[in-house]
Amino acid sequence: MRFNLTKEFIDQTKTAIAANDADWLKLNVLDLHFADIAEILHPLTNAEAKFVYFLMDEDQQSEVLMELEEDVRDRFLASLSTQEIASQLENLDSDDAADILGELSDKKVQEVISLMQDDEAAGDIVDLLKYKDGTAGSLMQKEFIKAKIDWAIDRALLELRRQAEDVKRVYTIYVVDDSDRLMGVLSLKDMLYSKPKTKIADIYNEKNIISVKTNEITEVVAKTMDKYGLVSIPVVDLQNKLVGRITIDDVVEFIKEEADKDFQMASGISEKVEHSSSVWKISRARLPWLIIGMLGGTMSAHVISGFEEQISQVTALAFFIPLITAMGGNVGVQSSAIVVQSLAKGSDIFSNVFKKVGKELLVAILNGVLLSTIIYGIGILFEGAKLAIVVSLSLFTVIIFASVFGVLIPLGLKKFKVDPALAIGPFVTTLNDIIGLFIYFTIGVYLYKF
Amino acid sequence: MRFNLTKEFIDQTKTAIAANDADWLKLNVLDLHFADIAEILHPLTNAEAKFVYFLMDEDQQSEVLMELEEDVRDRFLASLSTQEIASQLENLDSDDAADILGELSDKKVQEVISLMQDDEAAGDIVDLLKYKDGTAGSLMQKEFIKAKIDWAIDRALLELRRQAEDVKRVYTIYVVDDSDRLMGVLSLKDMLYSKPKTKIADIYNEKNIISVKTNEITEVVAKTMDKYGLVSIPVVDLQNKLVGRITIDDVVEFIKEEADKDFQMASGISEKVEHSSSVWKISRARLPWLIIGMLGGTMSAHVISGFEEQISQVTALAFFIPLITAMGGNVGVQSSAIVVQSLAKGSDIFSNVFKKVGKELLVAILNGVLLSTIIYGIGILFEGAKLAIVVSLSLFTVIIFASVFGVLIPLGLKKFKVDPALAIGPFVTTLNDIIGLFIYFTIGVYLYKF
Repeated sequence: MRFNLTKEFIDQTKTAIAANDADWLKLNVLDLHFADIAEILHPLTNAEAKFVYFLMDEDQQSEVLMELEEDVRDRFLASLSTQEIASQLENLDSDDAADILGELSDKKVQEVISLMQDDEAAGDIVDLLKYKDGTAGSLMQKEFIKAKIDWAIDRALLELRRQAEDVKRVYTIYVVDDSDRLMGVLSLKDMLYSKPKTKIADIYNEKNIISVKTNEITEVVAKTMDKYGLVSIPVVDLQNKLVGRITIDDVVEFIKEEADKDFQMASGISEKVEHSSSVWKISRARLPWLIIGMLGGTMSAHVISGFEEQISQVTALAFFIPLITAMGGNVGVQSSAIVVQSLAKGSDIFSNVFKKVGKELLVAILNGVLLSTIIYGIGILFEGAKLAIVVSLSLFTVIIFASVFGVLIPLGLKKFKVDPALAIGPFVTTLNDIIGLFIYFTIGVYLYKF
Repeated sequence: MRFNLTKEFIDQTKTAIAANDADWLKLNVLDLHFADIAEILHPLTNAEAKFVYFLMDEDQQSEVLMELEEDVRDRFLASLSTQEIASQLENLDSDDAADILGELSDKKVQEVISLMQDDEAAGDIVDLLKYKDGTAGSLMQKEFIKAKIDWAIDRALLELRRQAEDVKRVYTIYVVDDSDRLMGVLSLKDMLYSKPKTKIADIYNEKNIISVKTNEITEVVAKTMDKYGLVSIPVVDLQNKLVGRITIDDVVEFIKEEADKDFQMASGISEKVEHSSSVWKISRARLPWLIIGMLGGTMSAHVISGFEEQISQVTALAFFIPLITAMGGNVGVQSSAIVVQSLAKGSDIFSNVFKKVGKELLVAILNGVLLSTIIYGIGILFEGAKLAIVVSLSLFTVIIFASVFGVLIPLGLKKFKVDPALAIGPFVTTLNDIIGLFIYFTIGVYLYKF
């Protein structure tokens, strides 16, 4: 029932295109689901993709266009004339059309808009382009179904049939008053089972209607839809007039992007990059963290140089430098990871910081005792009792410190409105390196009685 | 329009409960959205929560119950009698009921099932409990709307009205043949605009119907729904008989959990833990990585001890150990992060490994030249030209090596069916430490002509 793209199929498709074999393509490609067609277009050249694309009807074209991956779509659109782009946009949902225009130059946007035949569609798109990126306004679409509160069901059905032509997926009908203010919602199910003369006012649901304002940020939109379990949410302007709706697919996209961003930030990558980004962009995204890491390394060097005298007497002290720094880093990252996740989920974990730190301390003591016992055993075999004690004691101390810092640093960043995911990156590791080394050599100095 | 929970409101609620003030609660709490009511129940004691809970009608109870956070719900259910649990389950969607039973002991499950009045509901739940965790069967619900292909619209409307009572959100009507085999889908919109005598066979959509089998794993279900942009997907058994549907809310939950898991694994935490997990569970989840890190540190110590002679001659060589290991780790994590993400998205990035490694090499050379120039400058100020050359040259070499390993290790793990997110944890960092130190001291030996 589901299509699986094979290399053979792509080859067959390419051969059919080369032979101008529209019949084969209609039979084998155009009958597929639009998501599958998009997958087939990905490995084709622009010219080949264009050939297949213009065999499809308008509805199919717009669905397939939105299924293409962003870079493939950009490449493909760049190969179309302004006139062709304009006619493609007319068949898209307004939010998708605005997204596509957002990727073009200002000059090209003007040209495309002026070439659009459908004034209403063009107006909707222009309107959406006004909203700031990352707000509900920029995410919403103008296609939704609304009914006036004083209509009867039969009148509503007539009007809705007209509206429904433009709306691909109908989840909910929004009920508005004469000035377009959102009053409530009505499900298709309710309409289906009401008598023709029933007034909407008598059957609509006015309780606990959840909506967002146009200037709400995407994160709030996502959290609201998640909390209230909605597949679409109405968007109202500052006067509570209904201006659009946001559907769950856009929000799922956002959730995934956020997770990606956190993951990259925790890995020390400061800009959103993809595998396909340019070498220059990838380098630039990584550089800030590497420079911080390098300055941290220089400071570590400075700390160690303060103990030059001792190292020259007991060279073996240098052997365990990487163990101490690595363990400080690992422990710090582990304990900050959970704090960062709780913060991302919106938990109010400031409420009892002391309890959290206390718990981390218990975990740290448990793991610290175990690990420092093991390293003591290894140390004795390797380098004798004295160094074993130094390494084991410092490892324990470093684990305790790193755990506590791991909790406090993301909380501190959050307090200062900095993304706490930063904490997991080189930031925590670098800081723990420096503190860990200081602890290690100080304990060394003390025990060796230098 | 949206409710914001304040501490005052909770205090007022507690006071009202203490005073048995059902009227206040009905007016101020029970009229809220069920997601908000759940939020109010969280900080209450079990006894208080029970008081509010049993003021609600059945529908409200089931909605609120499913909105509670898992640990609060478990605690709350534990305070109910088996009889009370049984009657709660009858109002839940079958998948939710099965989830709740999944958390009880086998003995209690038997008791609860035997106490349920509604045999059909009990049968549905027992059926769902048979499916293995993590498959489509365990995720689906038995509540969906189906119509026989040979019905006329008016007959269908009648039957559907009966079915629709049990189904909370109707997205799609599934069309089946006489043996319940899935033939296609029908939208409510289409039904709304068809004449009463129209046959379903004439208006239903039979093209490109996407379904999943009961034994499909959750990841495939999520990817399929995502690819085809579905808010619900029908589930069929091995004979293609329609047995359930999965709705998008369950899948969004899964996507978020996967992102969390990857994030934790990359942070060196091997089991799924929450901020609220026990000290013992948190310790255990972290220990495997810490032990690997410690063994790695011991191996680093071994590498360095091989150069004991040289360090005792030029103690300053020890100063830059942390810089070399930290930079190897940072670069390795950065370059593996993007590979891990591409793999998680299902990209086929094995297709041109050489191109990917080539790109990483370019990025590494770009950043490497810049960073080793800077460290050369710093090194000269600190420790003189010779050590500056050693540090600068090794930093460059380490950056190159770590970048290439960062790409190859996750790809290698994936080849051997191990989760590539492992690569980002202590694994890559530890390996890079050892290789980096070896490079550093080898270059040192060569340049100092020991």
